[in-house]
Amino acid sequence: MAIKKYNRAVHLCFVWLVVSTALLQTSDGHSRKKRSLPQPCRNLVLYFHDVIYNGKNADNATSTLVGAPQGGNLTLLAGKDNHFGDLAVFDDPITVDNNFHSPPVGRAQGFYFYDMKNTFSSWLGFTFVLNSTDYKGTITFSGADPILTKHRDISVVGGTGDFLMTRGIATISTDAYEGDVYFRLCVNITLYECY
Amino acid sequence: MAIKKYNRAVHLCFVWLVVSTALLQTSDGHSRKKRSLPQPCRNLVLYFHDVIYNGKNADNATSTLVGAPQGGNLTLLAGKDNHFGDLAVFDDPITVDNNFHSPPVGRAQGFYFYDMKNTFSSWLGFTFVLNSTDYKGTITFSGADPILTKHRDISVVGGTGDFLMTRGIATISTDAYEGDVYFRLCVNITLYECY
Amino acid sequence: MAIKKYNRAVHLCFVWLVVSTALLQTSDGHSRKKRSLPQPCRNLVLYFHDVIYNGKNADNATSTLVGAPQGGNLTLLAGKDNHFGDLAVFDDPITVDNNFHSPPVGRAQGFYFYDMKNTFSSWLGFTFVLNSTDYKGTITFSGADPILTKHRDISVVGGTGDFLMTRGIATISTDAYEGDVYFRLCVNITLYECY
Repeated sequence: MAIKKYNRAVHLCFVWLVVSTALLQTSDGHSRKKRSLPQPCRNLVLYFHDVIYNGKNADNATSTLVGAPQGGNLTLLAGKDNHFGDLAVFDDPITVDNNFHSPPVGRAQGFYFYDMKNTFSSWLGFTFVLNSTDYKGTITFSGADPILTKHRDISVVGGTGDFLMTRGIATISTDAYEGDVYFRLCVNITLYECY
Repeated sequence: MAIKKYNRAVHLCFVWLVVSTALLQTSDGHSRKKRSLPQPCRNLVLYFHDVIYNGKNADNATSTLVGAPQGGNLTLLAGKDNHFGDLAVFDDPITVDNNFHSPPVGRAQGFYFYDMKNTFSSWLGFTFVLNSTDYKGTITFSGADPILTKHRDISVVGGTGDFLMTRGIATISTDAYEGDVYFRLCVNITLYECY
Repeated sequence: MAIKKYNRAVHLCFVWLVVSTALLQTSDGHSRKKRSLPQPCRNLVLYFHDVIYNGKNADNATSTLVGAPQGGNLTLLAGKDNHFGDLAVFDDPITVDNNFHSPPVGRAQGFYFYDMKNTFSSWLGFTFVLNSTDYKGTITFSGADPILTKHRDISVVGGTGDFLMTRGIATISTDAYEGDVYFRLCVNITLYECY
């Protein structure tokens, strides 16, 4: 699999997040009863790898279309309207680096669908099911994912185990892709509530 | 498009919410270790406009069916069983007033499905992606939406940007509709956690 | 309907949860700025009953497939790949005990899909819509559900009414099942934030 590489170092991922967080605290000009943002209690950078079923890769595929608009089919992402309406279910390996063949530390399980007609954009609902020496538990994410934006934030809405009731944000970036078959996402998770 | 108007002023929306919130604080007779409800830190009233694909309006449609039970089709909402099981993906314009043609301040992106056989009811998962002078960021919502009830509450489960990690509730009301093709929803968002 | 009974007493459900919670507080060896876990403010044990449409039980079914991968159909759960990709919408009765015929105290409304190819596993997004003397309001849940594990935790991500903005975890166990047609789930809900 000839994966395109974006040659972006992991530490850049970190630097960007700190700047972004600082901006978030001041970008709303309105004066309201705001709480001061607590220090992050935990930061994780993980990768997950989505291999989309295309009619020929049943053994290797980690995701598959299960819904599509009228006229679409479930084998290939619909060509028109930027895949608007295509709905996929996935069970992707999670790794601590950007190597598809690294030993997985868990699975990213959930769904996404393409949600815009005039550009590529998606919406995500998924859970990191982590089972390694360093972390055991789940983190659940939800939110809009404007794919073509370099860094996009989604919400951490809950967790279990090591991540019991955690909250925070996850900054997603597309680390690599190959056509409509392979996507590798870097997820920089910043948690503000840990128990 | 001849939209039915319900002639309900926006300020009524506010009054109802205050009364409702007061009731929520006292309606549970059981004595438990409850926290006192904090003052809301922010209130937004926004509208979004859902134009459902019906086989003829591909250019204007902002939502489309992508799943249906056996015997259903993806062009029209199934006539029997109150559309039970019909699943739609949407990308709807958000406006600050009830005019479909007002300049949008963002997009409501997500999905809903009809979830009852004996009445109209749905379940919603979606994100407000806001990008205006007043707000930049996302708010993610989730919950049951008993469509025929005048005001129904769903949960605000997270946010990013101006709405980083926000929590609260959103009171949804159907402000107008036209058959099975157009729905306009008023969303009164009360946030209790702002950073 | 000849339901298999697991003969597990409700109080066992409780004991397990207390032990589990204690472990959760110490299982993460890393030293970070953690908050101390507050006392639970509320505990509910409820059951819900999922009767899956199989082509013959349209009147009694409380859930139906609305999406499936290529080659699947919407009448029966796909036999291969552990139903991977099958997506169901449900509206299930909730009872306070394990009797399908007890008067329901609400409805469990939402969706699930099978999300693994090599074992039975699912992902859940749903809301308890409660309307009884004891509770009026909604609780929304989200997370991965590894079906074959005896007890699995998912996140409580929000609520309305009596459960305004609640958070916590829900421990799900399969209390009974009959083939691919009936599932009864015991949900032990522990809430840590109540208003």
